[in-house]
Amino acid sequence: MHIITISREFGSGGRELGKRLADQLGYVYYDREIIAAIAQRSHMDTDYVENAIERPIWQAPSPTFRHSFATPSLFQSEQLNLLMEQRKVLEEIAEKGEDCVIVGRNADVVLSEYGPLSLFVCANMEAKIKRCRERAAADEQLTDKQMTQKINSIDKNRAKVREMITGSKWGDRAAYDLIINTSGWNLKELTPAVADFAQRWFARK
Amino acid sequence: MHIITISREFGSGGRELGKRLADQLGYVYYDREIIAAIAQRSHMDTDYVENAIERPIWQAPSPTFRHSFATPSLFQSEQLNLLMEQRKVLEEIAEKGEDCVIVGRNADVVLSEYGPLSLFVCANMEAKIKRCRERAAADEQLTDKQMTQKINSIDKNRAKVREMITGSKWGDRAAYDLIINTSGWNLKELTPAVADFAQRWFARK
Repeated sequence: MHIITISREFGSGGRELGKRLADQLGYVYYDREIIAAIAQRSHMDTDYVENAIERPIWQAPSPTFRHSFATPSLFQSEQLNLLMEQRKVLEEIAEKGEDCVIVGRNADVVLSEYGPLSLFVCANMEAKIKRCRERAAADEQLTDKQMTQKINSIDKNRAKVREMITGSKWGDRAAYDLIINTSGWNLKELTPAVADFAQRWFARK
Repeated sequence: MHIITISREFGSGGRELGKRLADQLGYVYYDREIIAAIAQRSHMDTDYVENAIERPIWQAPSPTFRHSFATPSLFQSEQLNLLMEQRKVLEEIAEKGEDCVIVGRNADVVLSEYGPLSLFVCANMEAKIKRCRERAAADEQLTDKQMTQKINSIDKNRAKVREMITGSKWGDRAAYDLIINTSGWNLKELTPAVADFAQRWFARK
Protein backbone atom coordinates (compact mmCIF):
# COMPACT_ATOMS: atom_id res chain seq x y z
CA MET A 1 0.00 0.00 0.00
CA HIS A 2 1.27 3.48 -0.92
CA ILE A 3 0.06 6.60 0.86
CA ILE A 4 0.92 10.08 -0.41
CA THR A 5 0.12 12.91 1.99
CA ILE A 6 -0.02 16.55 0.93
CA SER A 7 0.32 19.58 3.18
CA ARG A 8 0.15 22.91 1.41
CA GLU A 9 0.16 26.65 1.59
CA PHE A 10 -3.23 28.17 0.83
CA GLY A 11 -3.40 29.03 -2.88
CA SER A 12 -0.34 26.94 -3.84
CA GLY A 13 -2.38 24.43 -5.84
CA GLY A 14 -1.64 21.56 -3.44
CA ARG A 15 -5.19 20.26 -3.54
CA GLU A 16 -5.37 20.29 -7.34
CA LEU A 17 -1.97 18.62 -7.53
CA GLY A 18 -3.21 15.94 -5.11
CA LYS A 19 -6.32 15.28 -7.20
CA ARG A 20 -4.30 15.10 -10.41
CA LEU A 21 -1.70 12.82 -8.80
CA ALA A 22 -4.44 10.45 -7.62
CA ASP A 23 -5.96 10.42 -11.12
CA GLN A 24 -2.65 9.79 -12.83
CA LEU A 25 -1.49 7.07 -10.41
CA GLY A 26 -4.91 5.45 -10.04
CA TYR A 27 -4.91 6.12 -6.28
CA VAL A 28 -7.99 6.89 -4.18
CA TYR A 29 -8.25 10.60 -3.34
CA TYR A 30 -9.21 11.81 0.16
CA ASP A 31 -9.81 15.39 1.08
CA ARG A 32 -13.21 16.75 2.13
CA GLU A 33 -14.42 13.12 2.39
CA ILE A 34 -12.60 12.99 5.72
CA ILE A 35 -14.44 15.98 7.15
CA ALA A 36 -17.72 14.56 5.79
CA ALA A 37 -17.04 11.24 7.55
CA ILE A 38 -16.32 12.97 10.87
CA ALA A 39 -19.46 15.09 10.50
CA GLN A 40 -21.60 12.05 9.81
CA ARG A 41 -20.29 10.13 12.82
CA SER A 42 -20.63 13.15 15.09
CA HIS A 43 -24.09 14.03 13.74
CA MET A 44 -22.90 17.53 12.92
CA ASP A 45 -22.89 19.79 9.91
CA THR A 46 -19.82 19.41 7.63
CA ASP A 47 -19.00 23.13 7.53
CA TYR A 48 -19.33 23.35 11.30
CA VAL A 49 -16.95 20.42 11.77
CA GLU A 50 -14.39 21.88 9.37
CA ASN A 51 -14.48 25.18 11.19
CA ALA A 52 -14.31 23.65 14.66
CA ILE A 53 -11.48 21.26 13.82
CA GLU A 54 -9.28 23.92 12.26
CA ARG A 55 -9.67 26.46 15.06
CA PRO A 56 -6.49 26.95 17.11
CA ILE A 57 -7.33 25.34 20.43
CA TRP A 58 -6.88 28.46 22.55
CA GLN A 59 -9.30 30.41 20.38
CA ALA A 60 -12.55 29.73 22.20
CA PRO A 61 -15.28 31.57 20.33
CA SER A 62 -16.71 33.16 23.49
CA PRO A 63 -14.68 35.32 25.91
CA THR A 64 -16.36 33.46 28.79
CA PHE A 65 -14.19 30.47 28.07
CA ARG A 66 -10.93 32.26 27.47
CA HIS A 67 -9.68 32.20 31.02
CA SER A 68 -10.53 28.64 31.93
CA PHE A 69 -7.05 27.18 31.64
CA ALA A 70 -7.45 24.41 34.18
CA THR A 71 -10.04 22.35 32.34
CA PRO A 72 -10.80 22.39 28.65
CA SER A 73 -13.76 24.57 27.73
CA LEU A 74 -16.78 23.03 26.05
CA PHE A 75 -15.41 24.21 22.72
CA GLN A 76 -11.97 22.82 23.40
CA SER A 77 -13.26 19.42 24.38
CA GLU A 78 -15.49 19.41 21.31
CA GLN A 79 -12.45 20.12 19.17
CA LEU A 80 -10.43 17.41 20.91
CA ASN A 81 -13.23 14.92 20.30
CA LEU A 82 -13.36 15.89 16.64
CA LEU A 83 -9.59 15.56 16.33
CA MET A 84 -9.75 12.09 17.88
CA GLU A 85 -12.50 11.20 15.45
CA GLN A 86 -10.32 12.51 12.62
CA ARG A 87 -7.46 10.30 13.75
CA LYS A 88 -9.80 7.30 13.69
CA VAL A 89 -11.06 8.14 10.20
CA LEU A 90 -7.48 8.47 8.93
CA GLU A 91 -6.46 5.17 10.52
CA GLU A 92 -9.45 3.43 9.00
CA ILE A 93 -8.49 4.79 5.59
CA ALA A 94 -4.96 3.43 6.02
CA GLU A 95 -6.24 0.08 7.26
CA LYS A 96 -8.21 -0.38 4.05
CA GLY A 97 -4.81 -0.86 2.43
CA GLU A 98 -5.63 1.04 -0.76
CA ASP A 99 -3.08 3.25 -2.50
CA CYS A 100 -4.24 6.78 -1.77
CA VAL A 101 -3.53 10.50 -1.75
CA ILE A 102 -4.63 12.38 1.38
CA VAL A 103 -4.74 16.18 1.30
CA GLY A 104 -4.42 18.07 4.58
CA ARG A 105 -5.44 16.85 8.08
CA ASN A 106 -1.79 16.37 9.10
CA ALA A 107 -2.16 12.84 7.78
CA ASP A 108 1.63 12.51 7.36
CA VAL A 109 2.08 12.63 11.14
CA VAL A 110 -1.04 10.67 12.13
CA LEU A 111 -0.16 7.90 9.66
CA SER A 112 3.63 8.06 10.00
CA GLU A 113 3.88 4.38 10.87
CA TYR A 114 2.52 3.55 7.42
CA GLY A 115 5.55 5.26 5.83
CA PRO A 116 3.69 7.73 3.63
CA LEU A 117 5.44 9.86 1.02
CA SER A 118 4.99 13.22 2.66
CA LEU A 119 4.79 16.20 0.28
CA PHE A 120 4.56 19.89 1.08
CA VAL A 121 3.39 22.24 -1.66
CA CYS A 122 4.23 25.96 -1.64
CA ALA A 123 4.39 28.90 -4.05
CA ASN A 124 5.38 32.54 -4.03
CA MET A 125 2.75 35.06 -2.98
CA GLU A 126 2.18 36.42 -6.50
CA ALA A 127 1.38 32.95 -7.82
CA LYS A 128 -0.90 32.20 -4.84
CA ILE A 129 -2.88 35.42 -5.26
CA LYS A 130 -3.32 34.68 -8.96
CA ARG A 131 -4.54 31.16 -8.27
CA CYS A 132 -6.96 32.28 -5.55
CA ARG A 133 -8.48 34.90 -7.85
CA GLU A 134 -8.91 32.37 -10.63
CA ARG A 135 -10.75 29.87 -8.51
CA ALA A 136 -12.95 32.03 -6.26
CA ALA A 137 -15.07 34.90 -7.57
CA ALA A 138 -15.21 36.42 -4.08
CA ASP A 139 -11.43 36.83 -4.03
CA GLU A 140 -11.54 38.99 -7.14
CA GLN A 141 -12.87 41.88 -5.03
CA LEU A 142 -9.89 41.85 -2.65
CA THR A 143 -6.78 43.97 -3.13
CA ASP A 144 -3.35 42.31 -3.26
CA LYS A 145 -2.75 43.42 0.32
CA GLN A 146 -6.04 41.93 1.51
CA MET A 147 -5.36 38.70 -0.39
CA THR A 148 -1.89 38.45 1.17
CA GLN A 149 -3.39 38.94 4.63
CA LYS A 150 -6.06 36.30 3.97
CA ILE A 151 -3.52 33.75 2.69
CA ASN A 152 -1.08 34.38 5.55
CA SER A 153 -3.84 34.17 8.12
CA ILE A 154 -5.12 30.80 6.82
CA ASP A 155 -1.58 29.40 6.73
CA LYS A 156 -0.80 30.72 10.21
CA ASN A 157 -3.84 28.86 11.47
CA ARG A 158 -2.78 25.65 9.71
CA ALA A 159 0.65 26.00 11.30
CA LYS A 160 -0.86 26.47 14.78
CA VAL A 161 -3.17 23.47 14.46
CA ARG A 162 -0.30 21.29 13.23
CA GLU A 163 1.98 22.29 16.08
CA MET A 164 -0.83 21.80 18.56
CA ILE A 165 -1.73 18.27 17.53
CA THR A 166 1.60 16.93 16.22
CA GLY A 167 4.43 18.95 17.74
CA SER A 168 5.89 19.09 14.22
CA LYS A 169 6.55 22.44 12.57
CA TRP A 170 4.32 23.16 9.58
CA GLY A 171 6.23 23.74 6.36
CA ASP A 172 9.62 23.00 7.92
CA ARG A 173 11.81 20.96 5.59
CA ALA A 174 12.70 18.44 8.30
CA ALA A 175 9.10 17.20 8.41
CA TYR A 176 8.60 16.32 4.73
CA ASP A 177 10.12 14.07 2.08
CA LEU A 178 9.74 16.61 -0.71
CA ILE A 179 8.81 20.30 -0.80
CA ILE A 180 7.57 21.46 -4.17
CA ASN A 181 7.36 25.11 -5.17
CA THR A 182 4.63 25.34 -7.82
CA SER A 183 5.47 28.93 -8.88
CA GLY A 184 5.88 29.01 -12.64
CA TRP A 185 4.57 25.47 -13.07
CA ASN A 186 1.46 24.49 -14.92
CA LEU A 187 0.00 21.85 -12.56
CA LYS A 188 -0.88 19.63 -15.50
CA GLU A 189 2.83 19.52 -16.42
CA LEU A 190 3.98 19.25 -12.81
CA THR A 191 1.81 16.22 -12.04
CA PRO A 192 3.76 13.60 -14.06
CA ALA A 193 7.05 14.95 -12.62
CA VAL A 194 5.78 14.38 -9.08
CA ALA A 195 4.10 11.08 -10.01
CA ASP A 196 7.42 9.76 -11.37
CA PHE A 197 9.22 10.89 -8.25
CA ALA A 198 6.59 9.16 -6.09
CA GLN A 199 6.86 5.90 -7.98
CA ARG A 200 10.63 5.88 -7.60
CA TRP A 201 10.22 6.75 -3.92
CA PHE A 202 7.95 3.74 -3.29
CA ALA A 203 10.29 1.49 -5.30
CA ARG A 204 13.33 2.40 -3.14
CA LYS A 205 15.31 -0.46 -1.69
CA MET B 1 21.34 26.66 -21.20
CA HIS B 2 20.21 24.87 -18.03
CA ILE B 3 21.70 25.62 -14.62
CA ILE B 4 20.95 23.47 -11.58
CA THR B 5 22.06 24.95 -8.25
CA ILE B 6 22.32 22.89 -5.09
CA SER B 7 22.31 24.21 -1.55
CA ARG B 8 22.53 21.60 1.15
CA GLU B 9 22.74 20.70 4.79
CA PHE B 10 26.14 19.35 5.80
CA GLY B 11 26.08 15.55 5.58
CA SER B 12 22.85 15.38 3.54
CA GLY B 13 24.61 14.06 0.43
CA GLY B 14 23.89 17.20 -1.62
CA ARG B 15 27.36 17.28 -3.14
CA GLU B 16 27.25 13.61 -4.17
CA LEU B 17 23.76 14.10 -5.57
CA GLY B 18 25.03 17.09 -7.57
CA LYS B 19 27.94 15.11 -8.99
CA ARG B 20 25.68 12.20 -9.92
CA LEU B 21 23.08 14.52 -11.47
CA ALA B 22 25.77 16.17 -13.62
CA ASP B 23 27.03 12.75 -14.72
CA GLN B 24 23.57 11.47 -15.57
CA LEU B 25 22.46 14.60 -17.41
CA GLY B 26 25.80 15.23 -19.10
CA TYR B 27 26.12 18.65 -17.41
CA VAL B 28 29.37 20.29 -16.32
CA TYR B 29 29.89 20.03 -12.56
CA TYR B 30 31.16 22.97 -10.49
CA ASP B 31 32.01 22.81 -6.84
CA ARG B 32 35.56 23.25 -5.51
CA GLU B 33 36.58 24.44 -8.98
CA ILE B 34 35.01 27.77 -8.06
CA ILE B 35 37.12 28.21 -4.93
CA ALA B 36 40.18 27.12 -6.90
CA ALA B 37 39.48 29.78 -9.54
CA ILE B 38 39.08 32.50 -6.90
CA ALA B 39 42.30 31.36 -5.21
CA GLN B 40 44.21 31.44 -8.46
CA ARG B 41 43.03 34.94 -9.37
CA SER B 42 43.70 36.25 -5.87
CA HIS B 43 47.07 34.50 -5.65
CA MET B 44 46.02 32.81 -2.45
CA ASP B 45 45.90 29.28 -1.12
CA THR B 46 42.67 27.37 -1.90
CA ASP B 47 42.05 26.28 1.70
CA TYR B 48 42.68 29.80 2.93
CA VAL B 49 40.17 31.22 0.44
CA GLU B 50 37.53 28.65 1.34
CA ASN B 51 37.92 29.46 5.00
CA ALA B 52 37.95 33.22 4.51
CA ILE B 53 34.94 33.25 2.21
CA GLU B 54 32.79 31.14 4.49
CA ARG B 55 33.51 33.08 7.66
CA PRO B 56 30.54 35.07 8.95
CA ILE B 57 31.54 38.65 8.27
CA TRP B 58 31.41 39.81 11.89
CA GLN B 59 33.77 37.03 12.99
CA ALA B 60 37.11 38.77 12.60
CA PRO B 61 39.80 36.32 13.64
CA SER B 62 41.57 38.80 15.93
CA PRO B 63 39.88 40.63 18.84
CA THR B 64 41.64 43.79 17.70
CA PHE B 65 39.23 44.08 14.81
CA ARG B 66 36.03 43.17 16.60
CA HIS B 67 35.07 46.65 17.65
CA SER B 68 35.75 48.48 14.43
CA PHE B 69 32.17 48.84 13.25
CA ALA B 70 32.68 52.03 11.29
CA THR B 71 34.96 50.70 8.59
CA PRO B 72 35.44 47.13 7.51
CA SER B 73 38.43 45.46 9.11
CA LEU B 74 41.22 44.10 6.95
CA PHE B 75 39.67 40.67 7.23
CA GLN B 76 36.22 41.93 6.36
CA SER B 77 37.39 43.75 3.27
CA GLU B 78 39.39 40.70 2.24
CA GLN B 79 36.24 38.63 2.54
CA LEU B 80 34.21 41.18 0.57
CA ASN B 81 36.82 41.14 -2.18
CA LEU B 82 36.74 37.36 -2.29
CA LEU B 83 32.94 37.37 -2.43
CA MET B 84 33.02 39.82 -5.33
CA GLU B 85 35.55 37.59 -7.06
CA GLN B 86 33.24 34.64 -6.43
CA ARG B 87 30.35 36.50 -8.03
CA LYS B 88 32.50 37.16 -11.10
CA VAL B 89 33.56 33.52 -11.35
CA LEU B 90 29.91 32.41 -11.12
CA GLU B 91 28.85 34.91 -13.78
CA GLU B 92 31.61 33.78 -16.10
CA ILE B 93 30.48 30.18 -15.66
CA ALA B 94 26.92 31.19 -16.57
CA GLU B 95 28.11 33.23 -19.55
CA LYS B 96 29.80 30.17 -21.01
CA GLY B 97 26.28 28.95 -21.68
CA GLU B 98 26.96 25.31 -20.80
CA ASP B 99 24.40 23.17 -18.99
CA CYS B 100 25.81 22.81 -15.51
CA VAL B 101 25.30 21.83 -11.87
CA ILE B 102 26.73 24.24 -9.28
CA VAL B 103 27.03 23.08 -5.67
CA GLY B 104 27.06 25.71 -2.93
CA ARG B 105 28.26 29.34 -3.19
CA ASN B 106 24.67 30.67 -3.12
CA ALA B 107 24.76 30.38 -6.89
CA ASP B 108 20.94 30.28 -7.04
CA VAL B 109 20.78 33.88 -5.84
CA VAL B 110 23.85 35.20 -7.67
CA LEU B 111 22.64 33.67 -10.95
CA SER B 112 18.89 34.15 -10.42
CA GLU B 113 18.52 36.04 -13.70
CA TYR B 114 19.58 32.89 -15.55
CA GLY B 115 16.54 31.07 -14.14
CA PRO B 116 18.35 28.15 -12.51
CA LEU B 117 16.52 25.16 -11.08
CA SER B 118 17.28 25.76 -7.44
CA LEU B 119 17.48 22.64 -5.26
CA PHE B 120 17.96 22.34 -1.52
CA VAL B 121 19.04 19.00 -0.10
CA CYS B 122 18.41 18.03 3.52
CA ALA B 123 18.23 14.90 5.68
CA ASN B 124 17.44 13.94 9.24
CA MET B 125 20.29 14.10 11.78
CA GLU B 126 20.64 10.31 12.06
CA ALA B 127 21.18 9.98 8.30
CA LYS B 128 23.61 12.91 8.26
CA ILE B 129 25.73 11.50 11.09
CA LYS B 130 25.85 8.13 9.34
CA ARG B 131 26.93 9.73 6.04
CA CYS B 132 29.62 11.87 7.72
CA ARG B 133 31.09 8.85 9.49
CA GLU B 134 31.18 6.86 6.27
CA ARG B 135 33.04 9.52 4.32
CA ALA B 136 35.50 10.92 6.86
CA ALA B 137 37.65 8.75 9.08
CA ALA B 138 38.15 11.66 11.51
CA ASP B 139 34.39 11.81 12.18
CA GLU B 140 34.39 8.22 13.38
CA GLN B 141 36.03 9.35 16.63
CA LEU B 142 33.24 11.81 17.49
CA THR B 143 30.20 10.92 19.60
CA ASP B 144 26.69 11.45 18.21
CA LYS B 145 26.42 14.59 20.31
CA GLN B 146 29.70 15.98 18.98
CA MET B 147 28.72 15.11 15.41
CA THR B 148 25.35 16.87 15.86
CA GLN B 149 27.13 19.96 17.16
CA LYS B 150 29.59 19.92 14.28
CA ILE B 151 26.85 19.55 11.65
CA ASN B 152 24.66 22.24 13.23
CA SER B 153 27.58 24.62 13.52
CA ILE B 154 28.58 24.26 9.85
CA ASP B 155 24.97 24.75 8.74
CA LYS B 156 24.52 27.75 11.02
CA ASN B 157 27.54 29.31 9.37
CA ARG B 158 26.18 28.60 5.89
CA ALA B 159 22.91 30.20 6.91
CA LYS B 160 24.69 33.30 8.21
CA VAL B 161 26.81 33.72 5.09
CA ARG B 162 23.75 33.32 2.87
CA GLU B 163 21.74 35.90 4.77
CA MET B 164 24.70 38.25 4.79
CA ILE B 165 25.34 38.20 1.07
CA THR B 166 21.86 37.50 -0.35
CA GLY B 167 19.25 38.56 2.20
CA SER B 168 17.54 35.24 1.46
CA LYS B 169 16.93 32.75 4.25
CA TRP B 170 18.98 29.57 3.96
CA GLY B 171 16.87 26.41 3.76
CA ASP B 172 13.59 28.30 3.72
CA ARG B 173 11.12 26.76 1.30
CA ALA B 174 10.29 30.10 -0.33
CA ALA B 175 13.82 30.37 -1.73
CA TYR B 176 14.01 27.07 -3.64
CA ASP B 177 12.18 25.24 -6.41
CA LEU B 178 12.48 21.83 -4.79
CA ILE B 179 13.61 20.67 -1.35
CA ILE B 180 14.67 17.04 -1.26
CA ASN B 181 15.00 15.05 1.95
CA THR B 182 17.54 12.30 1.26
CA SER B 183 16.82 10.32 4.46
CA GLY B 184 16.12 6.73 3.53
CA TRP B 185 17.21 7.22 -0.09
CA ASN B 186 20.13 5.56 -1.76
CA LEU B 187 21.61 8.48 -3.75
CA LYS B 188 22.14 6.23 -6.75
CA GLU B 189 18.39 5.59 -6.84
CA LEU B 190 17.48 9.19 -6.02
CA THR B 191 19.54 10.66 -8.88
CA PRO B 192 17.31 9.57 -11.79
CA ALA B 193 14.22 10.75 -9.87
CA VAL B 194 15.70 14.24 -9.53
CA ALA B 195 17.12 14.18 -13.06
CA ASP B 196 13.64 13.42 -14.46
CA PHE B 197 12.15 16.20 -12.38
CA ALA B 198 14.82 18.61 -13.62
CA GLN B 199 14.24 17.72 -17.26
CA ARG B 200 10.51 18.31 -16.90
CA TRP B 201 11.25 21.57 -15.09
CA PHE B 202 13.39 22.88 -17.94
CA ALA B 203 10.79 21.72 -20.49
CA ARG B 204 7.98 23.69 -18.80
CA LYS B 205 5.97 25.99 -21.01
